[in-house]
Amino acid sequence: MSYLHAHSTAEDVRLACRSGDWNSPTSGIALGFVQANLVILPKEQAFDFLLFCLRNPQSCPLLAVVEAGNWEPAEVAPGADLRTDVPRYAIYRDGVKVEETDNIVDYWRDDLVSFLLGCSFTFETAMLSAGLPVRHIEEKVNVPMYRTNRPNRKTGIFEGELVVSMRPLKPEFIDQAMALSAAMPLAHGAPVHIGDPGDLGINDLSKPDFGDAVTIHEGEVPVFWACGVTPQAAIMASKIPFAITHAPGHMLLTNIRDSDIMQVQ
Amino acid sequence: MSYLHAHSTAEDVRLACRSGDWNSPTSGIALGFVQANLVILPKEQAFDFLLFCLRNPQSCPLLAVVEAGNWEPAEVAPGADLRTDVPRYAIYRDGVKVEETDNIVDYWRDDLVSFLLGCSFTFETAMLSAGLPVRHIEEKVNVPMYRTNRPNRKTGIFEGELVVSMRPLKPEFIDQAMALSAAMPLAHGAPVHIGDPGDLGINDLSKPDFGDAVTIHEGEVPVFWACGVTPQAAIMASKIPFAITHAPGHMLLTNIRDSDIMQVQ
Repeated sequence: MSYLHAHSTAEDVRLACRSGDWNSPTSGIALGFVQANLVILPKEQAFDFLLFCLRNPQSCPLLAVVEAGNWEPAEVAPGADLRTDVPRYAIYRDGVKVEETDNIVDYWRDDLVSFLLGCSFTFETAMLSAGLPVRHIEEKVNVPMYRTNRPNRKTGIFEGELVVSMRPLKPEFIDQAMALSAAMPLAHGAPVHIGDPGDLGINDLSKPDFGDAVTIHEGEVPVFWACGVTPQAAIMASKIPFAITHAPGHMLLTNIRDSDIMQVQ
Repeated sequence: MSYLHAHSTAEDVRLACRSGDWNSPTSGIALGFVQANLVILPKEQAFDFLLFCLRNPQSCPLLAVVEAGNWEPAEVAPGADLRTDVPRYAIYRDGVKVEETDNIVDYWRDDLVSFLLGCSFTFETAMLSAGLPVRHIEEKVNVPMYRTNRPNRKTGIFEGELVVSMRPLKPEFIDQAMALSAAMPLAHGAPVHIGDPGDLGINDLSKPDFGDAVTIHEGEVPVFWACGVTPQAAIMASKIPFAITHAPGHMLLTNIRDSDIMQVQ
């Protein structure tokens, strides 16, 4: 089950998901390939959601949109099958997560539109390359994610609050982490907050709303980035009849390279 | 009827349209204010159209989207009324232009979504400021626009071919015109073609498909830019039941300044 590693290819990961051999988080594997958040909705809600992404670009940076009925994101992952190639999916009905599942073959409908959004795992690779620590990778757990008190920009039926991911860093590493992530707007860009979690309405860092808690060492500062789980919170708040997403931390691996989405500064 | 001029404000223009006092093209007036192409569609087709814009950004650079039933583009022109503030509108049924009209009050429906797209008139102001000639402004006519043989990237029901605007320039002015327009991707950016119109499938520059012909002096080269009339061609090709656009060259004046959409290079 754990045969995927930092040097696996995106296709290795997708095929392992497809065969059922991998259903774990994807942080720290296939480094250098862009990982994507997945949101699948009926076409009836697709306009509102697409506009929601454009109006909330830091949490919902659009990598690709796959039109109704098609499950191959040919632009970013030719040959991939969105019904099977994500390690774990979440099914939502009326805004409530009713199930997690390894594939969505039985849930597929011809009116479903798929959205691939950038993911912070992309700048983690840049952080690791620069010698910065990424705690949840060190501790081999899922990244900790928190609901905040920051409202998204409302669009049609979608609203809800920003969700953030958190990585603790020593103060001397923060400027470099900011610069590396700011150069990747398609991977959520620069942090949205540094320091006191209370400013975001987060009461207890040891109890993330999604993912796993990580150790914060003496003297480290929590650094918060916009997170691609934000649309999942918006889906819950909207109570739309049906939606599918990846399970938090369990991303689609694309064939795009991290360097392809790095903005030259 | 011709009391608007280069130094009029965006609001001056909108109010003159609203009162029925101005129904002419807007090139050369209210210089410095961003002008916008307008596309209004039922929400049923709005997802396909929004994605079409994202996939054809040079011809369809999105300035703002106004959600269903709302006619005030509050982000870019607070106080404006999309039903009255454009000098001239075109009504399409089943992909055929059936009428031009000075306002669309009687056509308004609560399911209509409005899209504002950038316009090449914005970089014309930069050209004029730099001392470059803009022939259709000199000749006080509408800019010449041509259908081309370049297919748009198909999205759902929308396809069709690229429409371009043309400005003739002496060879020594072309680099500067390229640089000025390239800095404004939200105003169609750099030219798509320079020189032989035949390369775009254009047979006769003296017979534009939209707007007016202009004089091309001895030694001048035609320079072609992507044009916001492209979505009108896509609407015609799609044969969708109902749509409204501005009449070519008759734009909405926004409160955004040209400098706000200039990309720092």
